[in-house]
Amino acid sequence: MQEPAVVLLSGGLDSATTAAMAREEGFAVHALSVDYGQRHRFELEAAARVAEAVGAVEHRWVAVDLSAVGGSALTAPLEVPKDRSTDEMDRAIPITYVPARNTVLLAVALGYAEVLGAGDLFIGVNAVDYSGYPDCRPEFIAAFAQLANLATKAGIEGRRFTIHTPLIELTKAEIIRRGTALGVDYGLTHTCYDPNDQGIACGRCDACGLRLRGFADAGLVDPLPYQE
Amino acid sequence: MQEPAVVLLSGGLDSATTAAMAREEGFAVHALSVDYGQRHRFELEAAARVAEAVGAVEHRWVAVDLSAVGGSALTAPLEVPKDRSTDEMDRAIPITYVPARNTVLLAVALGYAEVLGAGDLFIGVNAVDYSGYPDCRPEFIAAFAQLANLATKAGIEGRRFTIHTPLIELTKAEIIRRGTALGVDYGLTHTCYDPNDQGIACGRCDACGLRLRGFADAGLVDPLPYQE
Repeated sequence: MQEPAVVLLSGGLDSATTAAMAREEGFAVHALSVDYGQRHRFELEAAARVAEAVGAVEHRWVAVDLSAVGGSALTAPLEVPKDRSTDEMDRAIPITYVPARNTVLLAVALGYAEVLGAGDLFIGVNAVDYSGYPDCRPEFIAAFAQLANLATKAGIEGRRFTIHTPLIELTKAEIIRRGTALGVDYGLTHTCYDPNDQGIACGRCDACGLRLRGFADAGLVDPLPYQE
Repeated sequence: MQEPAVVLLSGGLDSATTAAMAREEGFAVHALSVDYGQRHRFELEAAARVAEAVGAVEHRWVAVDLSAVGGSALTAPLEVPKDRSTDEMDRAIPITYVPARNTVLLAVALGYAEVLGAGDLFIGVNAVDYSGYPDCRPEFIAAFAQLANLATKAGIEGRRFTIHTPLIELTKAEIIRRGTALGVDYGLTHTCYDPNDQGIACGRCDACGLRLRGFADAGLVDPLPYQE
């Protein structure tokens, strides 16, 4: 029997690749999508498509209304920055940073893992093309693993939790190449912070910029349509 | 100007006392209630009453639907245990344990603190009368504080987060005496895991049992009505 693993699935390129890698490692994928009050739902629809494509055993949704605490362009009505160079992105943590987002995501994933009897969690964080988010760094992940062992009934009973971050040291181009080799259909994913009403990506926000440069660097064509 | 602090407020006896202690220490209380899919809403109504009574600057609600992951009598349709002795409670972690609950609560509180520019979080966990919950222990709290400094933009910029747990070493009787001295009206609080349709406490679940023994040990009378 396959070991169960909880895989956090946003519906983006990184989490789609992470799910494919978890399956490749032999885990039964239990996909978990957290709706933290995003302003658009297209990435949640993408998560459902990706979960099905990767052969997830199940796909759960947890609503966490982070819009009630605000503080981010992704959960509050602030302007999403556009047309920034990689240098500009590197200069400061952008307003698309969601306070404590990955702490919340991993906390919910930990609860789900405990219910399943799983000790393995997958999250597609990346410390290379990471937009400066503090909760994408290896030291954050290590601290969360320590916390998980102390936080849970399973931990007290001796289970050691492992937080798998297979993308953490990869460039966007390497992620795309790896996923393509595993058969990931990136046409099912959604990346854009600011799509139009039909869910078509803007091609100009930081997330679109990183994605498009990743495909270009990988020498591959992004199957997604863009507004321009 | 008073420093802001985020105080997790369930509406129970412990969090009401914690909020009064935060105010006593001179903090501006920003109360945060998390609705994690409890089966009854009476403790959420209690949280609103308690926030007002303690003079909270604001009171935010965040919905986190932990019922989607299940695994607890508090978020799934399992039977709440009744009429257990203290010895029986000590024997095992009960099914009212909510997987990773305090990790989720503190993660949301951390996001709110970051938005506020606060470095102080209060949570009314207790390691004495704690029903065996792993995430009420000092080592869990210490691990979360470490995580908070790594997880946030504020932490990267040098802020050190403090997780205040003023009740952690107190017995229930000591908590009740301390709160009574600070003017806490325990008639506003809600403790029962299994109230009737009018929100009247059962007097027989583990939570009611600990509360009633606490008042008895403190030599005080619980102002709440009970079903019997």
